[in-house]
Amino acid sequence: MADVITADVAIVGAGPVGLFAVFQCGMLKMSSVLIDALGEVGGQCTALYPEKPIYDIPAYPEIAASDLISHLETQMAPFAPPRLLGRRVIELKGQAGEFVLGTDGDDIIHAKAVIIAAGAGAFGPKRPPLEDLAAYEASGAVQYYVRRKEALRGKRIVIAGGGDSALDWALILKDVAASTAIVHRRSKFRAAPETAAQLDAAAASGAITLVTPYQLHALHGRSGTLHAVEVVDLDGARKMLEADVLLPFFGLATDLGPIATWGVDLTMHRVSVTPSSCETNIHGIFAIGDVANYPGKLKLILQGFSEAAVAAHAMFGIVHPGEALHFEYSTSKGVTP
Amino acid sequence: MADVITADVAIVGAGPVGLFAVFQCGMLKMSSVLIDALGEVGGQCTALYPEKPIYDIPAYPEIAASDLISHLETQMAPFAPPRLLGRRVIELKGQAGEFVLGTDGDDIIHAKAVIIAAGAGAFGPKRPPLEDLAAYEASGAVQYYVRRKEALRGKRIVIAGGGDSALDWALILKDVAASTAIVHRRSKFRAAPETAAQLDAAAASGAITLVTPYQLHALHGRSGTLHAVEVVDLDGARKMLEADVLLPFFGLATDLGPIATWGVDLTMHRVSVTPSSCETNIHGIFAIGDVANYPGKLKLILQGFSEAAVAAHAMFGIVHPGEALHFEYSTSKGVTP
Repeated sequence: MADVITADVAIVGAGPVGLFAVFQCGMLKMSSVLIDALGEVGGQCTALYPEKPIYDIPAYPEIAASDLISHLETQMAPFAPPRLLGRRVIELKGQAGEFVLGTDGDDIIHAKAVIIAAGAGAFGPKRPPLEDLAAYEASGAVQYYVRRKEALRGKRIVIAGGGDSALDWALILKDVAASTAIVHRRSKFRAAPETAAQLDAAAASGAITLVTPYQLHALHGRSGTLHAVEVVDLDGARKMLEADVLLPFFGLATDLGPIATWGVDLTMHRVSVTPSSCETNIHGIFAIGDVANYPGKLKLILQGFSEAAVAAHAMFGIVHPGEALHFEYSTSKGVTP
Repeated sequence: MADVITADVAIVGAGPVGLFAVFQCGMLKMSSVLIDALGEVGGQCTALYPEKPIYDIPAYPEIAASDLISHLETQMAPFAPPRLLGRRVIELKGQAGEFVLGTDGDDIIHAKAVIIAAGAGAFGPKRPPLEDLAAYEASGAVQYYVRRKEALRGKRIVIAGGGDSALDWALILKDVAASTAIVHRRSKFRAAPETAAQLDAAAASGAITLVTPYQLHALHGRSGTLHAVEVVDLDGARKMLEADVLLPFFGLATDLGPIATWGVDLTMHRVSVTPSSCETNIHGIFAIGDVANYPGKLKLILQGFSEAAVAAHAMFGIVHPGEALHFEYSTSKGVTP
């Protein structure tokens, strides 16, 4: 059902940073509308790793990704923006003060400013080139995200990949799995030193089997029920790993999609901004979070939060021309929608 | 008792941003030492407004300042930095990789890099020029900070000042006080629109008495026991306000102190930094939080957190020369000290 919505600020992307942007805009008396290609808010936190603990959100020694999102939702709730979920913004026209956005659901959004908080863009897993893959995906024998680790209790798990996700999940799942093996085409993993040390300890104790340097070669099973994963080394030597579930963590194939056509300057698939304002080359269009790029940029959720504050302050003059912005200290003014 | 301490990073200032800097450094395998002029960690959050709710920390819809500090302490606890509290750094010599700091307690600190997270510097309240003020301060009849609002239950309170602190406290204390009056020398308050609206409502209902435009003129009482506050308007007309307690909120007189002598570039009593690194003009010395200044800087606690991450990443090469920094995504690598 198509909507026509008018708001001060159109926020493209409803991940953690987009959600906090609603709050920051609201605190400065700017209304917003949230648009996201996914069917629910939270971005990758919700869709890819809801149960995964995050350790570097300030003042949260540990928080599950899904809890982070629910706290952010509570925080922005007073400003109750309209949400266009499961919609992609396919068109952006106009100029500062009078942008018009169109979605693939035929919604029309009128906004004075735009915040692109699209993360890595629309995303999906990189899939391994294996025969009959689709049947095993359909049965859940091949999964790219762990939605609930309990669902994997007692399973024989083969993880493929050499990065943080592969290692983090191996370390988490070893405690519930019947067995955990990790297949990587190199002998060395691309992981933080601490994670690598934990992996070595788990391998030494037999809790995790390291299968390196090997690559995935074939899936063995029947009617979507997996029995074994066959791997091959660089010399062509093959090995069978008993398995109920294969979890390939080869990263995400991401796609900025229509954003690339809006005229904003891109570098390496990210939107270039002026760090002091988070404004793009187009006046009135801002980018924050992982999608934004500037010298010294760190892809941390925290930096996105901070950029949301910067962008909201910077766009105030576009949304409320001629009005003085009363600077808010980070203390108690209260939240009044 | 003087200490000799060696750490990778000396963090000058143990407010929220200094505490989070310990965590960020620790996550990148850099040890730190915390130094603060106050006797406890938390800076203004602990010393000035421990009970005050903060609304703009991401994913905390509301958090008391003291709780923010205790969560940050928990988060950094794995890295257990030595703490030199009640000490001021009075001397800083040396260069990147080999700084030597000296405190007024004769401690000597050897550090490879320095983070200045000194907020507004050492701070104290601006005191009104009233006769016998010291006696009323000593008895607690004149207070510049509200440490526990319950201690003011049933009191007749006069608040002086026209900014956010004065208004916020008036709105909070009206619910416990016998009476609440607010004295300001102008008719208009310097407050956020929402706060001003709440004040108007409280004044209309009689919960708060607005005494404007008036200034403090004299304290009436005996032996430190306050009976009334006398105020005067611009024409010299005087008025008596019955009072047990006077709370002047005229802001803070702050003092960067010895920091001003370390050779770092200052602008308007703040330390100029390059925003992409938070480094000052002196290689190896960084500044973050309210004390730091750069184009577009917002004095929000959140920005200080973000700057702590930027500075920690930027100084990695000084602390661990030649080592590659494995970039950490904001997900679960775990915390391993």
